[in-house]
Amino acid sequence: MSKLKVAVIGCGSIAIHRHLPEYASNDSVDIVAVCDIVEERAQKSAEKYGAQAYTDYKQAITESGADLVSVCLPNYLHAPVSIFAAENGKHVLCEKPMATSDEEAQQMIAASERAGKKLMVAHNQRFVASHQKAREIIANGELGNIYSFRTTFGHGGPEGWSIDGANSWFFRKKEAFIGALGDLGVHKADVIRYVLGTEFVEVASMIESSAKENSDVDDQAVTILRSENGVIGTLTASWAYKRGEDNSTVIYGEKGNLRLEDDPDYSLIATFTDGSRVNYELGKIQTNDNGGQNSSGVVDHFVDCVLNDKQPLIDGEEGYKSLKIILAALESNETKKNVSL
Amino acid sequence: MSKLKVAVIGCGSIAIHRHLPEYASNDSVDIVAVCDIVEERAQKSAEKYGAQAYTDYKQAITESGADLVSVCLPNYLHAPVSIFAAENGKHVLCEKPMATSDEEAQQMIAASERAGKKLMVAHNQRFVASHQKAREIIANGELGNIYSFRTTFGHGGPEGWSIDGANSWFFRKKEAFIGALGDLGVHKADVIRYVLGTEFVEVASMIESSAKENSDVDDQAVTILRSENGVIGTLTASWAYKRGEDNSTVIYGEKGNLRLEDDPDYSLIATFTDGSRVNYELGKIQTNDNGGQNSSGVVDHFVDCVLNDKQPLIDGEEGYKSLKIILAALESNETKKNVSL
Amino acid sequence: MSKLKVAVIGCGSIAIHRHLPEYASNDSVDIVAVCDIVEERAQKSAEKYGAQAYTDYKQAITESGADLVSVCLPNYLHAPVSIFAAENGKHVLCEKPMATSDEEAQQMIAASERAGKKLMVAHNQRFVASHQKAREIIANGELGNIYSFRTTFGHGGPEGWSIDGANSWFFRKKEAFIGALGDLGVHKADVIRYVLGTEFVEVASMIESSAKENSDVDDQAVTILRSENGVIGTLTASWAYKRGEDNSTVIYGEKGNLRLEDDPDYSLIATFTDGSRVNYELGKIQTNDNGGQNSSGVVDHFVDCVLNDKQPLIDGEEGYKSLKIILAALESNETKKNVSL
Amino acid sequence: MSKLKVAVIGCGSIAIHRHLPEYASNDSVDIVAVCDIVEERAQKSAEKYGAQAYTDYKQAITESGADLVSVCLPNYLHAPVSIFAAENGKHVLCEKPMATSDEEAQQMIAASERAGKKLMVAHNQRFVASHQKAREIIANGELGNIYSFRTTFGHGGPEGWSIDGANSWFFRKKEAFIGALGDLGVHKADVIRYVLGTEFVEVASMIESSAKENSDVDDQAVTILRSENGVIGTLTASWAYKRGEDNSTVIYGEKGNLRLEDDPDYSLIATFTDGSRVNYELGKIQTNDNGGQNSSGVVDHFVDCVLNDKQPLIDGEEGYKSLKIILAALESNETKKNVSL
Amino acid sequence: MSKLKVAVIGCGSIAIHRHLPEYASNDSVDIVAVCDIVEERAQKSAEKYGAQAYTDYKQAITESGADLVSVCLPNYLHAPVSIFAAENGKHVLCEKPMATSDEEAQQMIAASERAGKKLMVAHNQRFVASHQKAREIIANGELGNIYSFRTTFGHGGPEGWSIDGANSWFFRKKEAFIGALGDLGVHKADVIRYVLGTEFVEVASMIESSAKENSDVDDQAVTILRSENGVIGTLTASWAYKRGEDNSTVIYGEKGNLRLEDDPDYSLIATFTDGSRVNYELGKIQTNDNGGQNSSGVVDHFVDCVLNDKQPLIDGEEGYKSLKIILAALESNETKKNVSL
Amino acid sequence: MSKLKVAVIGCGSIAIHRHLPEYASNDSVDIVAVCDIVEERAQKSAEKYGAQAYTDYKQAITESGADLVSVCLPNYLHAPVSIFAAENGKHVLCEKPMATSDEEAQQMIAASERAGKKLMVAHNQRFVASHQKAREIIANGELGNIYSFRTTFGHGGPEGWSIDGANSWFFRKKEAFIGALGDLGVHKADVIRYVLGTEFVEVASMIESSAKENSDVDDQAVTILRSENGVIGTLTASWAYKRGEDNSTVIYGEKGNLRLEDDPDYSLIATFTDGSRVNYELGKIQTNDNGGQNSSGVVDHFVDCVLNDKQPLIDGEEGYKSLKIILAALESNETKKNVSL
Repeated sequence: MSKLKVAVIGCGSIAIHRHLPEYASNDSVDIVAVCDIVEERAQKSAEKYGAQAYTDYKQAITESGADLVSVCLPNYLHAPVSIFAAENGKHVLCEKPMATSDEEAQQMIAASERAGKKLMVAHNQRFVASHQKAREIIANGELGNIYSFRTTFGHGGPEGWSIDGANSWFFRKKEAFIGALGDLGVHKADVIRYVLGTEFVEVASMIESSAKENSDVDDQAVTILRSENGVIGTLTASWAYKRGEDNSTVIYGEKGNLRLEDDPDYSLIATFTDGSRVNYELGKIQTNDNGGQNSSGVVDHFVDCVLNDKQPLIDGEEGYKSLKIILAALESNETKKNVSL
Repeated sequence: MSKLKVAVIGCGSIAIHRHLPEYASNDSVDIVAVCDIVEERAQKSAEKYGAQAYTDYKQAITESGADLVSVCLPNYLHAPVSIFAAENGKHVLCEKPMATSDEEAQQMIAASERAGKKLMVAHNQRFVASHQKAREIIANGELGNIYSFRTTFGHGGPEGWSIDGANSWFFRKKEAFIGALGDLGVHKADVIRYVLGTEFVEVASMIESSAKENSDVDDQAVTILRSENGVIGTLTASWAYKRGEDNSTVIYGEKGNLRLEDDPDYSLIATFTDGSRVNYELGKIQTNDNGGQNSSGVVDHFVDCVLNDKQPLIDGEEGYKSLKIILAALESNETKKNVSL
Repeated sequence: MSKLKVAVIGCGSIAIHRHLPEYASNDSVDIVAVCDIVEERAQKSAEKYGAQAYTDYKQAITESGADLVSVCLPNYLHAPVSIFAAENGKHVLCEKPMATSDEEAQQMIAASERAGKKLMVAHNQRFVASHQKAREIIANGELGNIYSFRTTFGHGGPEGWSIDGANSWFFRKKEAFIGALGDLGVHKADVIRYVLGTEFVEVASMIESSAKENSDVDDQAVTILRSENGVIGTLTASWAYKRGEDNSTVIYGEKGNLRLEDDPDYSLIATFTDGSRVNYELGKIQTNDNGGQNSSGVVDHFVDCVLNDKQPLIDGEEGYKSLKIILAALESNETKKNVSL
Repeated sequence: MSKLKVAVIGCGSIAIHRHLPEYASNDSVDIVAVCDIVEERAQKSAEKYGAQAYTDYKQAITESGADLVSVCLPNYLHAPVSIFAAENGKHVLCEKPMATSDEEAQQMIAASERAGKKLMVAHNQRFVASHQKAREIIANGELGNIYSFRTTFGHGGPEGWSIDGANSWFFRKKEAFIGALGDLGVHKADVIRYVLGTEFVEVASMIESSAKENSDVDDQAVTILRSENGVIGTLTASWAYKRGEDNSTVIYGEKGNLRLEDDPDYSLIATFTDGSRVNYELGKIQTNDNGGQNSSGVVDHFVDCVLNDKQPLIDGEEGYKSLKIILAALESNETKKNVSL
Repeated sequence: MSKLKVAVIGCGSIAIHRHLPEYASNDSVDIVAVCDIVEERAQKSAEKYGAQAYTDYKQAITESGADLVSVCLPNYLHAPVSIFAAENGKHVLCEKPMATSDEEAQQMIAASERAGKKLMVAHNQRFVASHQKAREIIANGELGNIYSFRTTFGHGGPEGWSIDGANSWFFRKKEAFIGALGDLGVHKADVIRYVLGTEFVEVASMIESSAKENSDVDDQAVTILRSENGVIGTLTASWAYKRGEDNSTVIYGEKGNLRLEDDPDYSLIATFTDGSRVNYELGKIQTNDNGGQNSSGVVDHFVDCVLNDKQPLIDGEEGYKSLKIILAALESNETKKNVSL
Repeated sequence: MSKLKVAVIGCGSIAIHRHLPEYASNDSVDIVAVCDIVEERAQKSAEKYGAQAYTDYKQAITESGADLVSVCLPNYLHAPVSIFAAENGKHVLCEKPMATSDEEAQQMIAASERAGKKLMVAHNQRFVASHQKAREIIANGELGNIYSFRTTFGHGGPEGWSIDGANSWFFRKKEAFIGALGDLGVHKADVIRYVLGTEFVEVASMIESSAKENSDVDDQAVTILRSENGVIGTLTASWAYKRGEDNSTVIYGEKGNLRLEDDPDYSLIATFTDGSRVNYELGKIQTNDNGGQNSSGVVDHFVDCVLNDKQPLIDGEEGYKSLKIILAALESNETKKNVSL
């Protein structure tokens, strides 16, 4: 069987640490094109993976013969490039947040549907074992009714991760549109929807940009959410957690609690009202500190969906639902009112 | 020197476990009166502490010769009894939340001022060593600018604490007015103001009453706060944390983090961006599980303020400021808007 | 509803520490008769539980109006007393090992069947949470094929447990018939059948009586078993483990291992070939050291089966199958051949 | 003094990881010949150690001028090559199991005796510090009478160790004759004889080959042993312990227990009936996981025996006694009877 | 056999917590007399142990028919009462320090020798398991040559131990003669002689009385010692270690170190230059905090020596040698010179 | 701004591991000259750091244009080379002990003063975080009055550190003058002065040279000190601590204790009489085992003092005061009398 061909658009950190090595280790795919506006970045990845280097994403998509396109660009380019790829008949794997507005997200979904191609958003946290196990426990009813939760994602900021360091597009509103909320918060919006198996209907939020110099985006946000079935909880995102990354989620239910990625030794700790406690060692979430996630499962899942015509776990609709929570948080901070979804 | 005389109004759990033993172990005070509408409860405490038993609080206050009055009653009685005591020339120590409305709180303050007597609200968490040490670290500038926080107080509910168990006034809106927010949330509103040394100006909140049967008050609340100097954070209160009490506070600053009552071994963990970490073992917060706090420091401080004519650390104004945060949370939940303070 | 009436025959340690308190705390039962050949023992329990004291078991069974009979006697009396009780129309809960020969066991089963009454054998280890969870994991196929196991039960001997200390019937072949194998080994024969969900077809054994003075029964036994589906493993029992009780079971499967009651902190540790590890804290097995098991679940289950006409989890057939393994071990030691079941 | 010369016959894993580096680091020896039927393997080791490469073991032994011969071949070749070496006047260090039958073992011993040369079997576990310390404790009588033991050696199989991986001779009965019992079980037969200082007289065993595909040898065995002085215990060997190697031994005695290589932190834990406990950190047993044992002490001891005309700790007779236990286990599994030694 | 009779002279803490209960639990002894100058103390112990109460030690010794006399008095009375007892034909067990001068010690020894009776000094630390094991390790040569040591005994002072609290004779030079050095230091002088198996020949010391009010004895001392075989080390004693008792000894030798009572978990940790480490859990030294040592082994040893005419482990000469070190320390502090022994 | 130029005299371990890399990583300094009597050592460092190599220290100092001189030579050369450098107008950083006699030290101080240049002694332990924090705690009065201390510095000897191994000048009295006391003891003399903020007035000492062959200097010393304000304590130094380096200090005060570098996990543990305990993780003292200290802070401080004309924390007077304690210890060992300072 001939291999699928992929074009990776954008050669920054997310491409280097995750998309490219994951495609390279998937036996069903050939990396045929890499593209970056900075030519030497494109060249470097091209050499490493035996691909063609491009600086024009349109050429990379149309001329490379790619079947798949990974969009690894600043947020404001997610929609236009994904739509262009879909319109040219490509399956698209787009980084999160999938877009910067409702309209963009809807257009992306529509474009892929018209093309009859897959659209997947790279919410890798759904593939983390503790999140999957927690979803299973809750779905099985082992916690009974769910009452509340807190979920957070914070670290010291993208300076140490982005290929451009402190000059990264992450800090510029024009390109990023959203700061910590878009970088980190949208992950937790997606994962808490996934784990609880419910949709949120109401959002209130407060946002600040006080911790970073030379930045005009939010660097911290505190948000409260209410679900359709009356679960309330907090979702926070921060680039101002200066000591250690925190990617934890705690869920409070009728029959016990779940602590996910909240303990140095255990991925998941389930405690029940009958006095029992179960500690799961399921492998740690990979952090930027240890080189970033390069075996996230995202690419393998995307390739599998294309090869076997499956619906991606995080398709355009799913990515859009998670995005809407973040957009609502931004709106709530502006209007000082709760926003209904 | 002759001893001060105190009348303790209400002989429920807070009186039994905290006020009465703390007065009894203070050498400057005699317990002269105890009062409860349930006569046998009054009798039992009267016998134990060699006091006179009353079932009418007015008699207890006016006929016992008391200098001090401790108000240990359901929330809706805090204001009327405190005001009555002040008007009869007594120094008043009132349980939290000090009142159930702005008007009540203001009247309490006014009554004590007119009488020239002390009014103190029993926010014992200010006397907890970890809270005091954290306040000192922040005031010293060791954390630099403060960015964010989360503070929570949750347990399985007052059923196991209240003298009336599941039939407690805690669950009846008419008497409690506020549920978990008034029982637990107001503690954290007070303590986060104290630790950060700042005032909050904006509150948003979502509240639910889903976890308790036979209750018409909130049993869980998630709240976000913004301070005058731009600190944002979450404050949550719950009677639906079914496994273990959580009374933790985490503070994120420019130079590090503080974790208060968030670790099984250490009362306070300070981590700094220079890589250092300081673990404080300062004695645990006493929990309902281990018999309740009976050496909270509240009574000793109150007595000291009366004896030496000092301003109580939590006087009426302080108690009122903490109350206003909770009242604003209730309002925000109703109006679905942020409430300014 | 009127309560069930129970007669407890034998007032030694197993009655005192387990049967009597468990019946006493079950709201559906009245203890109407206690019987012991040593009159003062019967009197003592009679007083404690408000029952009638007997020294003749036949009277205790027939004259007390009991619906249920617990047989808490030396091994050689299990069969005759159980049969007598069944023949008099009683439901019988008999201690383990249920009998000392095939014939006895078969007669017990037949007697209860004829009477249309329940017969249950008190193999309490089936009610231990780690054993139940392990059975569930294996039944779900989470371990894949099972290859091997080791299960053991050993401690320093019944001297410290039996009401007669070093003079106990446990050490006299005439009354006990079997030593450590009957006291401890039969528990593990039962529990390994239960956990693996398979039956054993072949037994080889070596037995010694070297560790106890003034004893003519086995005080240690090492046994190997083969199941119908080719699982092989070791089952050992000992009264010569002088330091600490060992009640552990380890199961080796295609996809991982289970360690039951083999760790000081965790009741069950499941390790899988995918690298994950799950530690279960499910409450410890109660040991003789900490006063014996007095909330084993055995009595509650027995009463529930009688009240609701359910089949006991360990009915006569089940108890007999576990006994046969022990009898085969004794035979193998004698014949120096493997014994087929 | 001129150095001894050694020829290493067989260049598989045991030669590469243990014999060759141990000879290389012994200052009294020169590696003069290496031999493997796969020429490139011989060449590779020859280059690394500056030796001559052979593909014919007879040439390697007779033409290299070697004084010593290490036999690192599949089991079925141990005897013929060892005998050939002895007949040609060489001291022989043979891997375990020394042979595949009584006759072979006896012939090996006889050949070396006739030649007046040393014969040593590479039972490295006797050189492990915990085994030596346990032997000393027992010999000193600190445990009093010994009652029982369990000893096991299991891991996931030789696939990851053998130079031929899943195609290794280890899985072929014609070449290996014995599987896990010969690879692992014979180690524990030897070490338990050594530690207890006693000989076994009776063996029963059950053996299965259910865990490996493409294998016709035993991959797991459970065995029970009785010693001349009435100690009974279990000896198990497995290639089906899928999670983690287990090389533990536990010994139960009158005055306490010894746990050898059974704890993640301590090589040996001695617990005594007087309540004391002694934890020995003596260096871990090296496992296949960490590259295999390459400082086992075996080669140094062999060289020392040759240089100073000492009797090897594991001479032919000792190796044979350990082998007989394994041969008896195989026989017992066939005959379903206990086998006397 | 008729029992030995003992008179215990002095009914303070050492008698109450150690001598009396140890005699009471020794089957070969009857407590016939107890004596204290405070009559009610004598009465209280007399009642508890069924003895005769005395306030005059001479009567207690001569009129009670005692065979043995325990001297549990302030230091300045050790010699006169011991001598009186010996002169009246009694075996004497005297508390430490045995005397307050060379002359007294010599007279005590002479008196017992003339009487042909035993004299033992109650240096209980020789019976502590870690000290005995360390002595054995050193005597076996396992540490090779010994180079140095540090040994200390310090706590917060005798206020919490003495029956007279802060008014104790311990703080009065006239009665105690020596403070912390006599209370604690002499223990370590004795134990370090015992453990090392050597005698000291040179002492230098600095002493202070700065930590206690209302005391005219030393409350802390730092001392250096040189042994006949060139071992040098520090011996310190203190009543000014305000947080936790420290009773540790560390010994440095050619082949490793020993840490005695220096670790919260292990009584003795032996580390060797070969990399091994052995942790001994031998039971903790009992501290004043946990009620004092009441199973020290001292009384049992004394009784055994009398019954079987053995030489006490710490006879008068041994006690005197340990005392001389302390007397030399006092002298060195005065003269500011090293003192030779 | 032009950079400072430094000449490093002596290219042994202290230069290689500390002075040279610290100068190299300081942006305000250029290493212009390196000097060693062994030419190849000078060459090697010259190449590594782009400096000029010298074998004559006078040339290195006068001809290189250096502003700064680091003296990294055997002890007996510290004074003459430092004086020569000062007389030639250089700022001097001299290794410890600064000299081998009072006269030398005084002349060094005088020479630098005459030249108007800085003289600093490289007592790096003052820069260790735990020492600084302890000094701060004591100075703040948090421990109240200080009563006593013990401070030690010991390891297995300089064999493994010195570039000459067992043939090092460290072992020759003519060049080292002092052994362990000068190598290690003077560090603790300096650091205990610094931490306590007091001066010592009296020293007694015992010294031995028993642990090293081929050495004529002290390899262990036990010393007692008394301060001007009555604090007494022990200071010990050793090259005979064969297992693990010990660089600990313990300080006993009125309100608690401090343990510095005495715990495997915490740099400093403060325990207070109010029951609280604070554990500081401040980074470990670097040991010879882990490559030596190469970020000691010494060079940065020296450079800062020169650049900004500050007084060095350890100037000549400070270094001299610490040296005097060691010289007094040597004298006390000779005279067997206390030496006053």
